[in-house]
Amino acid sequence: MTASSSELLARIRGSRRELARLLTRVENDQAVAELNELYPYTGKAHIVGITGAPGTGKSTLVNALAKHYRVQNRTVAILAVDPTSPFTGGALLGDRIRMRDLSGDPGAFVRSMATRGSLGGIARATADLVRVFDAAGYDLIMIETVGAGQSEVDVARLAQTTLVVEAPGMGDDVQAIKAGILEIADILVVNKADRPGVEATVRALRAMLDLGHRAERVAHHGRQMKVDSAAPVDEFAAWIPPIVQTVASDDKDEGIADLAHKLEKHRQYLIETGVLKYREQARITLELEDRLREVLLQRLIAQVGRAQIAALVQQIVDKRESPGEVIATLLARSAESAETRG
Amino acid sequence: MTASSSELLARIRGSRRELARLLTRVENDQAVAELNELYPYTGKAHIVGITGAPGTGKSTLVNALAKHYRVQNRTVAILAVDPTSPFTGGALLGDRIRMRDLSGDPGAFVRSMATRGSLGGIARATADLVRVFDAAGYDLIMIETVGAGQSEVDVARLAQTTLVVEAPGMGDDVQAIKAGILEIADILVVNKADRPGVEATVRALRAMLDLGHRAERVAHHGRQMKVDSAAPVDEFAAWIPPIVQTVASDDKDEGIADLAHKLEKHRQYLIETGVLKYREQARITLELEDRLREVLLQRLIAQVGRAQIAALVQQIVDKRESPGEVIATLLARSAESAETRG
Repeated sequence: MTASSSELLARIRGSRRELARLLTRVENDQAVAELNELYPYTGKAHIVGITGAPGTGKSTLVNALAKHYRVQNRTVAILAVDPTSPFTGGALLGDRIRMRDLSGDPGAFVRSMATRGSLGGIARATADLVRVFDAAGYDLIMIETVGAGQSEVDVARLAQTTLVVEAPGMGDDVQAIKAGILEIADILVVNKADRPGVEATVRALRAMLDLGHRAERVAHHGRQMKVDSAAPVDEFAAWIPPIVQTVASDDKDEGIADLAHKLEKHRQYLIETGVLKYREQARITLELEDRLREVLLQRLIAQVGRAQIAALVQQIVDKRESPGEVIATLLARSAESAETRG
Repeated sequence: MTASSSELLARIRGSRRELARLLTRVENDQAVAELNELYPYTGKAHIVGITGAPGTGKSTLVNALAKHYRVQNRTVAILAVDPTSPFTGGALLGDRIRMRDLSGDPGAFVRSMATRGSLGGIARATADLVRVFDAAGYDLIMIETVGAGQSEVDVARLAQTTLVVEAPGMGDDVQAIKAGILEIADILVVNKADRPGVEATVRALRAMLDLGHRAERVAHHGRQMKVDSAAPVDEFAAWIPPIVQTVASDDKDEGIADLAHKLEKHRQYLIETGVLKYREQARITLELEDRLREVLLQRLIAQVGRAQIAALVQQIVDKRESPGEVIATLLARSAESAETRG
């Protein structure tokens, strides 16, 4: 532990304003050194992803969970990621509700990330923000996303435990299926469980789970030979996602204690079976590859120059060179440039 | 035109079996040289993307469009991309229907791509398959995807004209909004227009379009200063996506001629305004960046070695080094390796 890192650590643990400032620098990709310094102090938080379609009461549920943890004197950070298009307005995550209930509580921190840039960029920034919260000492970090596709899957990969939230009577019974996010669920929550149709939703989810469980087993057996020997043998068989019914609203909080208990159980399962380390390894590998792709591309652009690349794009558009030929050219130039420098 | 490329061209134009074989090699990323050879012969086809939720009758509609073009003696290739999870079974695109109607017709070619690997890999393979069809001389190439998120957006980017298909009474009125795919639509199709609720669906779509059109104009004005001077001034203002009502089923084909007419009109608009070239440039830039990211990563892995990378991942998992530190290490090693070689 260097003096500077323990100082930085003390600063973000001691001051919400310092923490908020660092989060902003991280989001703007201006805190590489700080992230390096803080990294050794990460790894203690329980990182939970919460996703689901708009209208399932996701934000209110996150809020209720946060309050439950606060009563037990555990600290909570909420990171709301909203990768929606300008079309839907982007205000789907209920910040105002949360602000009202949690503001002024020094053990809770709420941060919204207005998503700019690419999907990959969002996932990278989210990973870094979570690490800052983790180093800052928050016990529970909840990442909340709107369930609308690949971005959720990417963000959910960052979580140790992923909740998929449904609600009865949302038209198509089970929204999660369409987005293909059911398979990332560690715990399924049917929120607004005091509404009519709750039994049908639970039944539909259970049927999907049974189907999925079988499919996963088949997939698992199919690739068994290729599986890393370090993989815990019963990763797929051991945890069957429970379905928890909740009612989270202004005047009711039902099933929240049960949900918190299931969260704890899942974390225990992850640690005791070794699945946590195994998944962490897989996740870090993906993250490293993703960051390298981006860094290597930026290095090549710097080596070759944007004008040169634009000229080559024009060659492709004009059908004078194929994409494959241009890539070969660029790789050769980047190798030359490395040699000249060396 | 080299002898070998015109020979290859003659082979895939003359033999369906040769074409099918090349498509398989392209899908398996084993045809870099062939793609380079064929590239100069691309650029003549109208590339149309069709997306929409399951249940909208997308496949039947694609089939009806194909038959309409065949009656006019124009050749059609259909590429069905199904990026669904094992959960949904993956058999959502109605191959059997198509096979029955189009098999034996030498002017139509149907190809399904069972999606393996990453989303990026799917988009890259789709781009290459479309180029083979284009060089092979097909007038219309339809790329059909299940509307379920980012993969559709990526695949739709390959198309010159994108159809988003809706149907009345699908629970939530307008499915496209959730997936955020309305903004990629050049033409909106309300299929199954003989069903109750069609007026409500059309009304909802029109309202969304009005909203979206305004949002785009605002976004357009916001970035006007940064816009490339080569951009056609009225790209956003000039084309307002029409809403076309169709009934495509076994015994009825209503609105198909109208839809084909709108497709043609959109293509004319793209060509006459210069938007086609402009979009092609943007698309090629993205494709090039995407392919470079992947190629550069693979080169670095080859330089450093998989075992070394696995060891560094373990360092991160054990909190001994941060992702940022490992990336710096890997970049330095890859630079050294380039120098040693040079």
